[in-house]
Amino acid sequence: MEGKRLLRFLFLIFSVVLLLLFTLLNLPYEPSDKAELLDCATYSPWCTSKNRFQSKMPQLLQNSPKPTRRHHSADVPHHPLDPLTLQEFNKVRTILSSHALLKSSSSYALHSVVLEEPDKPLVLRWRKGNPLPPRKASVIARVDGVSHVLSVNIDTGEVTQLETGSISGFPTMTIEDMNSATWAPLANADFNRTILERGINLADLACLPISSGWFGKIEEKRRLIKIQCYSMEGTANFYMRPIEGLTVLIDLDTREVVEIADKGKNIPIPKAADTDYRYSAQNIHQELNLVNPISIEQPKGPSFTVEDDHLVKWANWEFHLKADPRAGVIISRAKVRDPGTGEMRNVMYKGFTSELFVPYMDPTDAWYFKTYMDAGEYGFGLQAMPLDPLNDCPRNAYYMDGVFAAGDGTPYVRSNMICVFESYGGDIGWRHSESPITGMEIREVRPKVTLVVRMAASVANYDYIVDWEFQTDGLIRSKVGLSGILMVKGTPYVNMNQVNQQENLYGTLLSENVIGVIHDHYITYYLDMDIDDSDNSFVKVNIRREQTSPGESPRKSYLKAVRNVAKTEKDAQIKLKLYDPSEFHVINPSKKTRVGNPVGYKVVPGGTAASLLDLQDPPQLRGAFTNNQIWVTPYNQSEQWAGGLFVYQSQGEDTLAVWSDRNRAIENKDIVLWYTLGFHHIPCQEDFPIMPTVSSSFDIKPVNFFENNPILRIPPNVEKDLPVCKAAASA
Amino acid sequence: MEGKRLLRFLFLIFSVVLLLLFTLLNLPYEPSDKAELLDCATYSPWCTSKNRFQSKMPQLLQNSPKPTRRHHSADVPHHPLDPLTLQEFNKVRTILSSHALLKSSSSYALHSVVLEEPDKPLVLRWRKGNPLPPRKASVIARVDGVSHVLSVNIDTGEVTQLETGSISGFPTMTIEDMNSATWAPLANADFNRTILERGINLADLACLPISSGWFGKIEEKRRLIKIQCYSMEGTANFYMRPIEGLTVLIDLDTREVVEIADKGKNIPIPKAADTDYRYSAQNIHQELNLVNPISIEQPKGPSFTVEDDHLVKWANWEFHLKADPRAGVIISRAKVRDPGTGEMRNVMYKGFTSELFVPYMDPTDAWYFKTYMDAGEYGFGLQAMPLDPLNDCPRNAYYMDGVFAAGDGTPYVRSNMICVFESYGGDIGWRHSESPITGMEIREVRPKVTLVVRMAASVANYDYIVDWEFQTDGLIRSKVGLSGILMVKGTPYVNMNQVNQQENLYGTLLSENVIGVIHDHYITYYLDMDIDDSDNSFVKVNIRREQTSPGESPRKSYLKAVRNVAKTEKDAQIKLKLYDPSEFHVINPSKKTRVGNPVGYKVVPGGTAASLLDLQDPPQLRGAFTNNQIWVTPYNQSEQWAGGLFVYQSQGEDTLAVWSDRNRAIENKDIVLWYTLGFHHIPCQEDFPIMPTVSSSFDIKPVNFFENNPILRIPPNVEKDLPVCKAAASA
Repeated sequence: MEGKRLLRFLFLIFSVVLLLLFTLLNLPYEPSDKAELLDCATYSPWCTSKNRFQSKMPQLLQNSPKPTRRHHSADVPHHPLDPLTLQEFNKVRTILSSHALLKSSSSYALHSVVLEEPDKPLVLRWRKGNPLPPRKASVIARVDGVSHVLSVNIDTGEVTQLETGSISGFPTMTIEDMNSATWAPLANADFNRTILERGINLADLACLPISSGWFGKIEEKRRLIKIQCYSMEGTANFYMRPIEGLTVLIDLDTREVVEIADKGKNIPIPKAADTDYRYSAQNIHQELNLVNPISIEQPKGPSFTVEDDHLVKWANWEFHLKADPRAGVIISRAKVRDPGTGEMRNVMYKGFTSELFVPYMDPTDAWYFKTYMDAGEYGFGLQAMPLDPLNDCPRNAYYMDGVFAAGDGTPYVRSNMICVFESYGGDIGWRHSESPITGMEIREVRPKVTLVVRMAASVANYDYIVDWEFQTDGLIRSKVGLSGILMVKGTPYVNMNQVNQQENLYGTLLSENVIGVIHDHYITYYLDMDIDDSDNSFVKVNIRREQTSPGESPRKSYLKAVRNVAKTEKDAQIKLKLYDPSEFHVINPSKKTRVGNPVGYKVVPGGTAASLLDLQDPPQLRGAFTNNQIWVTPYNQSEQWAGGLFVYQSQGEDTLAVWSDRNRAIENKDIVLWYTLGFHHIPCQEDFPIMPTVSSSFDIKPVNFFENNPILRIPPNVEKDLPVCKAAASA
Repeated sequence: MEGKRLLRFLFLIFSVVLLLLFTLLNLPYEPSDKAELLDCATYSPWCTSKNRFQSKMPQLLQNSPKPTRRHHSADVPHHPLDPLTLQEFNKVRTILSSHALLKSSSSYALHSVVLEEPDKPLVLRWRKGNPLPPRKASVIARVDGVSHVLSVNIDTGEVTQLETGSISGFPTMTIEDMNSATWAPLANADFNRTILERGINLADLACLPISSGWFGKIEEKRRLIKIQCYSMEGTANFYMRPIEGLTVLIDLDTREVVEIADKGKNIPIPKAADTDYRYSAQNIHQELNLVNPISIEQPKGPSFTVEDDHLVKWANWEFHLKADPRAGVIISRAKVRDPGTGEMRNVMYKGFTSELFVPYMDPTDAWYFKTYMDAGEYGFGLQAMPLDPLNDCPRNAYYMDGVFAAGDGTPYVRSNMICVFESYGGDIGWRHSESPITGMEIREVRPKVTLVVRMAASVANYDYIVDWEFQTDGLIRSKVGLSGILMVKGTPYVNMNQVNQQENLYGTLLSENVIGVIHDHYITYYLDMDIDDSDNSFVKVNIRREQTSPGESPRKSYLKAVRNVAKTEKDAQIKLKLYDPSEFHVINPSKKTRVGNPVGYKVVPGGTAASLLDLQDPPQLRGAFTNNQIWVTPYNQSEQWAGGLFVYQSQGEDTLAVWSDRNRAIENKDIVLWYTLGFHHIPCQEDFPIMPTVSSSFDIKPVNFFENNPILRIPPNVEKDLPVCKAAASA
């Protein structure tokens, strides 16, 4: 007995020493200076260096283009929707630090500090040159374990506490939450022991903070997170080396280990070989240089301007663009020029990715809770890292930074978080040739050039490439590309011939001991359409078969378009049906075209996958905004986040589905359209060790908005305008 | 009475004189030399000139790039699938002209002369350097009113007559059929009178040959076509000026007017103003030069080669490419390199657009029959006009010609009918950044470059842009863009406020007196997949909700993938369902990956619209290949055209639907996958007077075909490889 206790004691000591060693060796992971950790690109060296160059091709580094580095210290707001500036962030921090609520607290953290957008009528009335409406910050603070929503008037210093009601859930985690939780298990000797027992050197450990969802009593009133770990021995792609079955439940507030589940001791850690995807880790003699260099070139430069840091003007479009810690990218006040009148016409007041829902399809102990809601839990914008020039965006791109606040309110700059570029991939805007049948000498073709706004959020393993693409014909395409790395599960199997046909692997055997678990992705967009003015209606244009009467026609049937104006929200809860199709228009009932059609835009669905989970399943209750593919709600400033304001561990009582079920009137009102892009993902071996991008998109598209084709008069390409290029000199 | 007869006589004389005048003035429409009419680009001047430059910008013409003009007189076949050469066409013509069947006939026309592809095993065994299998032509001839399918051995001169059974329908029209039918009404005094009565100068008349479909007795045993006409007074876009309600039924063989229906006398011809889309017809002071010049540049040239005129090699892909008068573009023997073994692996033996179905949704007299099947009726390739360099395809494109035969067997060259180019629009092949959570210094991104094969078919008013896009990750995207001009209907209405709510316009009022009639587009693809070898199986991987047992998991439900191998054709008649989704794999059951998954490709649906017409409606019987979105049939050389070999006026007894209902075995067989892209099109004012391109696509995509990500080792872009460009000097 005594001997056993001594052994335990020695082990504990050993573990602690190891832990200390590890902490010292890996100090950058928990730096004392939070700003340095967070301030990717402006101060910390790693975000801008490219390790592939560092390790094998240092001479190339100087050839890499460097987008202009901006310091933002002199930024001032020019537009009512401009995000908070560095100076404003600092003012907010000062105001709050002396405010009674925070000053008297034993601990607090600011989970969100963003511009409190002025009321919509104020923004709509505002014109360039007018004074800005009062600048306010909307702050979500957690003070002694209680969430508060504060409105901070930056000029007057006034702080107002807003009532949020007694809804469940917690604010978006801070980066500090995620970091501290990730390393919290190392303070636990049992955890360290189990790691060592699995044969893993603590220095090779990489852990991830996995939102625990909500499944009942245990999650209540306590902010919890689950930590799962991986071995990074021999690979940068530790995601492919799970320590399967080991789940550590952590209290996010106390960093205390609540529970350790350790159920995968018989499951080997998959091998490191062939998992590293970095260029520097490949055998260069096996390099696969498949294509000659190719580039989008604009000899006269780009055709867009960014006025006052945020107002993008391109071709016939104009919109306000900003980074947001939760949504990622926010497009506001999108207007398009009417080619007839020259007037800029309102299309969309505000559009952004409101929430994501990513349920994994494995009900077992270490997997059931993986039902991510990336925007509200992790911050879709917080996870968007600096873009890689020439690869994430073409050479002709313009880069925009995000300025966010750390948990203590200190602002930091996320450099090059968004890029804007003109795209031409050889597509055709419109064309017509006359055929020999008519014998006319006509061949008229116009190339299609678009403007893309891009962000890439890396929510741990997965990478979401979020594009807003503007076309000159008035169409806006919202596209999401999925790349990055699968979340995989360890298994004893190395070949499918070992697997009994009855057994459910919950996914695909991707490599020896690696299963890619089936999952869905849903990305729900908030689209506050303002077609010319704010008051709009939602019209379902149902396409129905009509049977002809006997003798009426040699045809038995044809399709007819039947218009139905949605009166209330339930009329606009849409499940798409291939055999009962409709078009979905947002129209301005007060404005008609010359020949009397209501002006409008339609949402053109794409990327349609529907959630099939039980509607009463806890994850689906929280992700109930995916119960329909389309919803329409009356504009309500407080209804912006489809999964609710406090998504973390929410129970689903503040989702779009709940709001919509109030069944409010939506006809001829200021309305918001919600669209959900969906993907079912059954992994395949091609997704290993990193996934080729899979994309889906939907469009919002003018429908009788213009009197006629708005790009009728654009000229064709002619040789004399195109650049003269030569190969760059070799190094 | 006498006076009335005199008036009639004078009118007739007047009409005949007018007709003669018109014929003389418009002689190029019916030239004596057929080759000149058909040989677009090589001999006739109009196909290569750009009237926009001629009229207003002649100085630009010399700056236009001119793809290499090929004369083809020295072409020889190098590959078993190479199309017939000019010399071979001439041999076939000579052989046939002395063959008893044609020699003894009073009239004949060759409706199709194409290579008779050697049997698949011969092609699969053939290697470069081997002698070619015997060269044969497959000829569809109409001799004294009877259709014959002939096999002509080009070397031996042997002609074999093939049995086609007693199926209904006629071969694809010849261009001569379409031309002569178009002008046939002018020989009819009643027709001319009615045109004059409508106030149209005969010199302003433009007519279209509209396939009449099949609706019962009247169409039987007689080859018929319907002619409808337009006024081109004041516009090149005569399509917007219909002479509504006037339909002339013509016997295609005798060119005789069978019937004139004239029911729209009260419907005004819409105005010409604002209908012309040509650049030369725009007011230049209103020019809308929205964007600066932009170009895809490749300083070291394109990365692909075209060996022996038809074998395209690019990156990890290789395929045979040719033009076909009916299908347009045929891709054969598509193979992709396995990055592990370096071996070229079979993916698709043959892929092409097999048939189109375009039903209009108006059951009235002048519209009910508009249910086009463009490939089998008009020839999708015959209607593909020369592409416009810099606008239809980017500057870096390579152009390929088609060589086809006229109705008398004379070959002609359709120059620049297909283009091949590398595309880069700024997309991302794969990426991953590590987030601050893990703190690792990783940002790895690879740009996505693809190879596009493009054709644009102008089937009278509509333009179909048909793209095959090859990706280095093994994916093939089939995309169809719709542009061109709507088929519109005249109406007395000038504003929707004149229209009773109950009234069915069958479409949208687009402009004064112009209705864009609702219609569908279906494009059915033939995809003879050979995953590594010819014997494959079709697997439905159904995604189903599983409920957990009580106590099993905090989750109530999850999704499970259930594999079902299709045994027979009926198992593979697929209607897509959003709430009962599946993946659709073509696998090689004899070949497994290292970890034991069957190698395969999946079809990833997109552009899903289903035909909703009554299954017993005559057009839907003929277009029954659209009854499902996916079908799988056992390979059968005679089953290539989804609407049947003789589509014109067919009754639907030789369609894919009929073949599939035989319910043959398809497991572990050489199988053909059929996919239908669909569009419902409710026109809108933006489509007037010419439509911005609308695109849809589907993918065939590797699924456990490769051991892992096949583009893991490709390098990122670096600045030093990209071109150095400057603006071209101004003229």
